[in-house]
Amino acid sequence: MKPHVTVLTLGVDDLERALRFYREGLGLESEGIVGTEFEHGAVVFFLLKGHLMLALYPRKEVAWDAQVPQGPKSSTEFTIGHNVNNKEEVNEVMAQARRAGAQVVKPAGPTFWGGYAGYFQDPDGHLWEIAWNPQLRVEDAP
Amino acid sequence: MKPHVTVLTLGVDDLERALRFYREGLGLESEGIVGTEFEHGAVVFFLLKGHLMLALYPRKEVAWDAQVPQGPKSSTEFTIGHNVNNKEEVNEVMAQARRAGAQVVKPAGPTFWGGYAGYFQDPDGHLWEIAWNPQLRVEDAP
Repeated sequence: MKPHVTVLTLGVDDLERALRFYREGLGLESEGIVGTEFEHGAVVFFLLKGHLMLALYPRKEVAWDAQVPQGPKSSTEFTIGHNVNNKEEVNEVMAQARRAGAQVVKPAGPTFWGGYAGYFQDPDGHLWEIAWNPQLRVEDAP
Repeated sequence: MKPHVTVLTLGVDDLERALRFYREGLGLESEGIVGTEFEHGAVVFFLLKGHLMLALYPRKEVAWDAQVPQGPKSSTEFTIGHNVNNKEEVNEVMAQARRAGAQVVKPAGPTFWGGYAGYFQDPDGHLWEIAWNPQLRVEDAP
């Protein structure tokens, strides 16, 4: 298996609410809800750097598509790490997320591994860690 | 907020079991468990293409680190999409995952959106979709 991930799909309860949070709130670019010509097809895509796509898809459709039972909401199944290059950027992104309606569960502060980070939850409870790691420079180029 | 994700962290119950599945089973490269010099620090990293890191971290430590209650196991919170360039590659990756001990929940087959895909679950129940999308060419370059 080649070491790549093409799409990270978040299970959501309300596609329009999640789209608003990520597009209007966090400023990610998207064409909005697409795929509505198919039953079970309504989905939202954001193209991120590194050719990764972030997708939003209803939890019930994730269950349908993968043929598994729909599970309960749970915030500790995964986290999304968004690294920036200094503490100020961490604070700015955390503030932007809060304004967008995120729940700040861990305000930004020093971490045990020598960095500076905070966590917020999106409207579906998915955890984002906004982090500055002094040993990791994040390039702006795609 | 800049449109990038640096790390996708999977909450796991057993770090060594998850490492075995991803390193020995799927063939992803890793230095193994690192960070053990810190309490709550034990973690596994795999560097993927596009500068994305895949991390494994115990669910209870995700809860500790993000300061949220540990949630129940749930497979419909997110899915990881791994795209390849033809149906044969989908079949090969699905077979490799099965040999590695994955649970194939949806055998590969034609999809409603015109592609060919299947789903498996890793030992922690996390869903991977292995997909060929005729409209998406996946480059091998990093």
